[in-house]
Amino acid sequence: MPVIRGQFPLIAILGYSSADFYEPQKGRKEMPRIDGGRVVADLKRLADFGRYKTGVHRPTYSPVDVESRHWLVGKLRDATDPGCAGLGIDVAAWADEEGHYQSFLGSHSFTGVLSEEQIDRVQGRDDGTPLREALQRAGFAGRPRERVEPGRYVGYLEAHIEQGDTLDTTGLRIGVVEAIVGIWNYLVRLEGEQNHAGTTRMVRRKDAGVAMVRLATRIHDAFPEIAGPRTVWTIGRMLIEPNAPSVIPGHAEMQVQFRDADPERLALFEKTLHELVGEADRAGPCRVAVEPMTHSEPRPMDPGFQAQIEAAAERHAPGMHMRLPSAAGHDAAVLSYRMPAGMMFIPSLGGISHHWSEDSKEDDIVLGAQVFADAATRILRAA
Amino acid sequence: MPVIRGQFPLIAILGYSSADFYEPQKGRKEMPRIDGGRVVADLKRLADFGRYKTGVHRPTYSPVDVESRHWLVGKLRDATDPGCAGLGIDVAAWADEEGHYQSFLGSHSFTGVLSEEQIDRVQGRDDGTPLREALQRAGFAGRPRERVEPGRYVGYLEAHIEQGDTLDTTGLRIGVVEAIVGIWNYLVRLEGEQNHAGTTRMVRRKDAGVAMVRLATRIHDAFPEIAGPRTVWTIGRMLIEPNAPSVIPGHAEMQVQFRDADPERLALFEKTLHELVGEADRAGPCRVAVEPMTHSEPRPMDPGFQAQIEAAAERHAPGMHMRLPSAAGHDAAVLSYRMPAGMMFIPSLGGISHHWSEDSKEDDIVLGAQVFADAATRILRAA
Repeated sequence: MPVIRGQFPLIAILGYSSADFYEPQKGRKEMPRIDGGRVVADLKRLADFGRYKTGVHRPTYSPVDVESRHWLVGKLRDATDPGCAGLGIDVAAWADEEGHYQSFLGSHSFTGVLSEEQIDRVQGRDDGTPLREALQRAGFAGRPRERVEPGRYVGYLEAHIEQGDTLDTTGLRIGVVEAIVGIWNYLVRLEGEQNHAGTTRMVRRKDAGVAMVRLATRIHDAFPEIAGPRTVWTIGRMLIEPNAPSVIPGHAEMQVQFRDADPERLALFEKTLHELVGEADRAGPCRVAVEPMTHSEPRPMDPGFQAQIEAAAERHAPGMHMRLPSAAGHDAAVLSYRMPAGMMFIPSLGGISHHWSEDSKEDDIVLGAQVFADAATRILRAA
Repeated sequence: MPVIRGQFPLIAILGYSSADFYEPQKGRKEMPRIDGGRVVADLKRLADFGRYKTGVHRPTYSPVDVESRHWLVGKLRDATDPGCAGLGIDVAAWADEEGHYQSFLGSHSFTGVLSEEQIDRVQGRDDGTPLREALQRAGFAGRPRERVEPGRYVGYLEAHIEQGDTLDTTGLRIGVVEAIVGIWNYLVRLEGEQNHAGTTRMVRRKDAGVAMVRLATRIHDAFPEIAGPRTVWTIGRMLIEPNAPSVIPGHAEMQVQFRDADPERLALFEKTLHELVGEADRAGPCRVAVEPMTHSEPRPMDPGFQAQIEAAAERHAPGMHMRLPSAAGHDAAVLSYRMPAGMMFIPSLGGISHHWSEDSKEDDIVLGAQVFADAATRILRAA
C-alpha cells in the first residue's frame, strides 16, 4: 500500500460563529467532500521542504521551515473557496510545538501567555541562536503578533498522527482524543566528589555517576508497581561531570518525566520519586536532591467535540474508531485554556514518531482529512 | 602548616653513565644537599602560570603552558652547576601526560612510539584543535624531536605526588613505587530504539538509557566480589542519545575502566565484564556489546632503583616511608620499556588530585626533593 512519508502537518482549525461565511450554511445538510488526491499531493509537496531520508527535518525558523510556511500561505490564498467549505474557519500552522526554541511557541503567543521578555530571553536548544535573531532572519521581526480575539471562536480542532501504536496495533483508523495527558518533569541532581580514577580507593569515593545509575535503576524498578495502564515514564536526559574516562564523576544530573491523564496518578508518581530521592540521599555517600521543572496538567477535550468527531468517524469508517488519551503534548492543550478544544488522530505506522522513519498510510490520511472536515462542519452547525 | 598549592611538577631525571660529569664524582661520599627554600619559591613561582583558585590550570600547549616551559628552561640555564649536582643528569619536563591531546605525548615522542602520522591526526579533546596547529602556535613546529639515545642512560627516575591518600592517612612521607598499575579501558555500546517519550507504551520500549543504568548497576554490584585490596574501577564517561527529556534514548555508551598491578586480576575483571555484557544482551530488549579500548600493562619498577630510593628515604625520614603501587599512569611506565625506571611519591593532602584543591605540605615537598636528589646520586654512583 502506498504511504506518505514525513510528518502529518500540524494544521489547526478555528471556527468562528459570528461571520458571514457561516450563517448562510446553516440550512445545508450535505457535508463537505474533501479531495483525497489533492490532500496527498499537497502533503508530498510539503515533504520536499527539508526532506531527510524518507522523512523531513525542518528546524523551527530555519530557511526551509520559513519557505514551507510561505508555500502553505500561498496554497490557502489560491483556494477557490476562501471560507474553507463555506464555513467560518481560521486555519493556523503553529510554530515550534516541539521546542527548538520553546515548546508551543506559536500557540502560547496566540493565547497571550508568551511575553516579549520571554521572546528576548529564549535561545535555540541546538546552537544557542537567540530567538530574536532567528525571527529577524526568518523575516518575521517587527510583525504584529496574531492574538486570540475573545468571543470570536466556537472552538479549536486539531488533527495529528497518533505517534503511539494503539491504532496501528488494533487496526482502527480514527482516534477521538479524550484528554491530553499531564507531563511532569523533574531535575535530579547528585553531588559527589570529583577525583582521580586511579588513586582514589573505592571505599572513599563519592561517585556521582554510581549514585545516578543506582537511583535510576531504583526508579525503573519502582514505577511499574504504581503505574496505570497508560502511564509512561522516561529518563531521557543524563549528564555526568566531567565525563572523562579517568575521572570520578563529581556531579551528575538526570531529568525524570512521567505522563498520565489522571492527576492523582501523577501525584503518586511524584510522591514515589521524592521518597526514592530521599532514600538515596540518606544512604549516601552522595547528596541527592530533586526539583520540579515544567508541569503541564492533564487537559480533558470538550465532550461535545468528542461526540461530533466520533459521529463523523462513524459515518466514514463505521466501527473503525476509538476514544483514547493523547500521551504527547499538543497545541490543543494550550488552546483548551481559551476555548473548547478537540483532537483527532490517524494511525502512525509502528507507532514511530520524531524520527525520519515516521509514516502513515495514504488511505488513513485521506480518511482523516474527510472525518476532520466533517467533524468541523458538525461542530459549526451545532454552534 | 604552610602549604604549596598547585601541581607538583612532572620533572624527570635521566642519569647517563658515559659523560664527563659523572666520572670525577665517583669517589665522593657526600650527598647533594638541596636548597629547600629555593625549591618552594620556584614551585610558588611556577604555580603563578595559569593560577586557578588555589591551584593551576595549564592546558597543554596553551600560551600559559608554553610560557611556564620557557621559564623552566631559563631556570636550568641559570643553574650555576650545569651538571645538576655534578652528576650526569638530563632533566625532562614531559608534555601532555594527562592527555589534552593524547596521553604521554612527550614521553611517547621521546621513546619513539609516536609517529608523524599520529601527530597529524591528533586533535584537542576540548575544542578539536589539531595538534599540528597547537604546536605551530606554541612555536614548536619544525623543531627536531628529542629522541632517546640508545646506551646513554642508566635509567629514569620520576617524582610525583601520590594523588591517592595512602601516605596522607598513614602519616608516612615518602612512597617508593613498586609498580605502575595496568589500566584497561572498554567501550560498552547499547542499541535500543529512539522514540517518543509520551506515545510509546512501556511494554514496547527499547530504552538504551534504561539498559545502561541497569548494566552499570550490575557492574558496580559484581566488581567488589572479585576485587583485590587495591583494585579500582570507574565508569567515568556515559552518554545517551539524543539526550533530550522527551525522547526515549535509542543509543547509549559508557566507558568502563579498571586498574590493578596484577595481570591475572585484570584478566578476571575483563572476563566478568564480558559475562555481564553478554547477560544484558541476551536479556534484551536492547543489544549490548563491549570492545576493548586502550590497555596499558602493569609495569614493575626496577628493584635496584626501589632499593636506592628506599635507602635515601630511610636516611632523611627514618621509618617514614613505604612501598606501594602507583594507581595512576605515569611517564615512568612509558620510559620503563626503554630503560630501568623508578618512581617516588610525596603525600597528597586528602588524596585529592586533578582538581584545583590538590595540595601538598611544604615540608613534604622539601623532604621529597632531598630524597629524590639523594636517590639519583646513589643510583648513578652504583652504576
